[in-house]
Amino acid sequence: MAEEKKFVAEVTSMEEDFAKWYTDIVKKAELADYSGVKGCMVVRPYGYAIWENVQKSLDRRFKKTGHENVYMPMFIPESLLQKEKEHVEGFAPEVAWVTQGGSEKLSERLCVRPTSETLFCEHYSNIIHSYRDLPKLYNQWCSVVRWEKTTRPFLRTTEFLWQEGHTAHATAEESMEETIKMLNIYADFCEEELAIPVIKGRKTDKEKFAGAKATYTIEALMHDGKALQSGTSHNFGDGFAQAFGIRYTDKDNKPQYVHQTSWGLSTRVIGALIMVHGDNDGLVLPPRIAPVQIIIVPVNQNKEGVLEKANELRERLSKIARVKLDDSDKKPGWKFSEYEMKGVPARLEIGPKDIEKNQVVLVRRDSREKIFVSIDGLEKSALDFMEKIQADMLVRARNLLESKTYSAATFEEFADIIENKPGFVKAMWCGDRACEDAIKEKTGATARCMPFVRENIAETCICCGKPASNMVVWGKAY
Amino acid sequence: MAEEKKFVAEVTSMEEDFAKWYTDIVKKAELADYSGVKGCMVVRPYGYAIWENVQKSLDRRFKKTGHENVYMPMFIPESLLQKEKEHVEGFAPEVAWVTQGGSEKLSERLCVRPTSETLFCEHYSNIIHSYRDLPKLYNQWCSVVRWEKTTRPFLRTTEFLWQEGHTAHATAEESMEETIKMLNIYADFCEEELAIPVIKGRKTDKEKFAGAKATYTIEALMHDGKALQSGTSHNFGDGFAQAFGIRYTDKDNKPQYVHQTSWGLSTRVIGALIMVHGDNDGLVLPPRIAPVQIIIVPVNQNKEGVLEKANELRERLSKIARVKLDDSDKKPGWKFSEYEMKGVPARLEIGPKDIEKNQVVLVRRDSREKIFVSIDGLEKSALDFMEKIQADMLVRARNLLESKTYSAATFEEFADIIENKPGFVKAMWCGDRACEDAIKEKTGATARCMPFVRENIAETCICCGKPASNMVVWGKAY
Repeated sequence: MAEEKKFVAEVTSMEEDFAKWYTDIVKKAELADYSGVKGCMVVRPYGYAIWENVQKSLDRRFKKTGHENVYMPMFIPESLLQKEKEHVEGFAPEVAWVTQGGSEKLSERLCVRPTSETLFCEHYSNIIHSYRDLPKLYNQWCSVVRWEKTTRPFLRTTEFLWQEGHTAHATAEESMEETIKMLNIYADFCEEELAIPVIKGRKTDKEKFAGAKATYTIEALMHDGKALQSGTSHNFGDGFAQAFGIRYTDKDNKPQYVHQTSWGLSTRVIGALIMVHGDNDGLVLPPRIAPVQIIIVPVNQNKEGVLEKANELRERLSKIARVKLDDSDKKPGWKFSEYEMKGVPARLEIGPKDIEKNQVVLVRRDSREKIFVSIDGLEKSALDFMEKIQADMLVRARNLLESKTYSAATFEEFADIIENKPGFVKAMWCGDRACEDAIKEKTGATARCMPFVRENIAETCICCGKPASNMVVWGKAY
Repeated sequence: MAEEKKFVAEVTSMEEDFAKWYTDIVKKAELADYSGVKGCMVVRPYGYAIWENVQKSLDRRFKKTGHENVYMPMFIPESLLQKEKEHVEGFAPEVAWVTQGGSEKLSERLCVRPTSETLFCEHYSNIIHSYRDLPKLYNQWCSVVRWEKTTRPFLRTTEFLWQEGHTAHATAEESMEETIKMLNIYADFCEEELAIPVIKGRKTDKEKFAGAKATYTIEALMHDGKALQSGTSHNFGDGFAQAFGIRYTDKDNKPQYVHQTSWGLSTRVIGALIMVHGDNDGLVLPPRIAPVQIIIVPVNQNKEGVLEKANELRERLSKIARVKLDDSDKKPGWKFSEYEMKGVPARLEIGPKDIEKNQVVLVRRDSREKIFVSIDGLEKSALDFMEKIQADMLVRARNLLESKTYSAATFEEFADIIENKPGFVKAMWCGDRACEDAIKEKTGATARCMPFVRENIAETCICCGKPASNMVVWGKAY
């Protein structure tokens, strides 16, 4: 057990230093590594395998709702980026510029895409002519670049992996419907796959996407009480269509502008998985997204028949789950710690005594609960075991969210909570940018969103005291 | 049928202008579109769906052989690119340089990766310590950028999609074995999935990858007799390891350099699919890679029961194949032409008379052969039908390759074939760079590879007449 302790001891406890605990887990669970490129990370096999599961699961949802994947260039000519005024103002300050190609100095700078609205708009203006061409429901899996000053693996890096959906519709109603549909897909994905409950709502104008008419968001709450914006969905109305001249001929043969949306979710959600479910022994992954769902650790593996049995079980279980057998010569205790660090949801132990009793031991990563189950019908027991883990993890995360969500009727209450009880705070807001700025200035909290589900916490704005009908969820955010 | 003719007539025939025929198909089959970004294309949904099938099929092969996916930064600092001398000389002239990030002028230029050896090497030097850490078998799906002067969709674009495998091994034998293993995986993939036979061989020193000890290639032959390099696998020996200091401690506790490989295959193979299988009516896709394998076209679809039956068959067939039903109000002839243009391998026609007879019509895209099969057991008939198409397409492509492969014993024979019968020419070479350069200078042909399967065409080099033991396959290439 000495080895085991050594392994675990290398992680800072989250109570001691949450930020350090986070980066320790990123490193120790081998999710990512730093690179020599400022602000960029190397996504290691285990981290990338989580991302592949995110991709598979989201992509299935996108395709089921009629979306198609495409690939756009990674460069945007400066003149193209500038076509939509608000958009360029929002993004130009944080892009990387290519000024030289081979030995040739470029006559026009190219930016490395920070997001691809302008490229999709240009393409749409080429391929959309008639109402028959609508809707266009495109998505792209790629990486984007935003020149960030301070970075942290998965949460904020100069380059990150994401998907960006870009759609064009005949009417404002349809683009509104799409915006909300995709937000709901994100929220369902987070709850069902990642076991992370989220608050759905609309961003204030200050916080919305550059060029959008309205931005909707899903906000998750981390263990330290900070918010993490986990996915956004934007309704553009016909703003981009006007800037880029994306018109179609309607059924009455009249020219009309299309209405557009875009929506994105990134490798940030891997950061959310760490900070919602992780503990001081490492990562804790929900079974549906875990690269390895069951780790089989043989006990006394040199005893006759143990490895044979372990292999037989691996074979059986691999038909219903992502299973790995660790038959290396490390001690079982060391293996336990290693897979705990990696957050493997279920551990199956099998030794000579278990074989005698025709049983195995199943141990949960999340609750450490241990059960003995018969080898007969092991497939069903294992599936039930994982479903229970998945469900319990969501309940636990929901409890975390609820226990750290507060209400404040006055500014004093609000400031006290933000200062002393990190979490979400529901409070009323008059709608003025000045109050929003002042609240941030004084407390550090930002408007996370105006939730779809509203309550009437008070009659007046916590900042200016004027009548207020907007309930905002505030918090400090990553 | 007038509509049908109109649709087809928009494609230039390949006999008239092969290059124009190619780009017509790229556009008309909606594989890709030009973008406002010089040299970059938009990969449209149908083209991307082919790429997704390539990815799925290759990724399965990679994982089955123990490879893991990762993601490296897209930027390479100039100093990192310069660490391996030959490598930087080969790539520096054709990279895009980022010189500005946000409002800040960078103190060191970053190149957008043209390939990622240097990044993998840096990472390997951080994570490889002991023989226990080996082998590292990593792969990455991404896009890379090479500043090209003349571009053509899929064949040569400034940015293109690919996968790049990068592995590190304990011994020279292991890296050699890996190099050949991955070349064989590429060749098998091309034959089995794309129905494209290839010649496997080694590149001459002139044609090898910048920084490699040896480069191996698979070369395919297009309809116009030109070669297309379709995948390469490089053995680096310990050259990069020495430049980047990638060392491990062996079992005897001695420091050793690792031995490395890299291997890549790109969206070029979509160009190969077009130019090996396509005809004057459009694309012809082998079933295993086709986004839609069976297109169901109802005939007299307004007659009672036709659409119901068509839907029932779609439902049944979708369990065993990628099926689409086109129940739009376009005329059947128009639909026929449209899916012929898109190269859908099998068309299923069903009309009132077929329903009466409890049959459907199956039509092959490749040979136009038409058969009537019973609705009972349609699943098996459809699968057999597609297997036959897949097998026949490979035979046809193999015949194309063989019929356009020649031998030349003298320079006169060689020059005559290159001039008048475009294809591969097997001829002997002494091994001198001067002769290789002269042959290119005089005929335009390059050494495609020195095949694994050799023949003794003659005793002397076709260029200098000195004794020669190297049989080279020469050709003009894309």
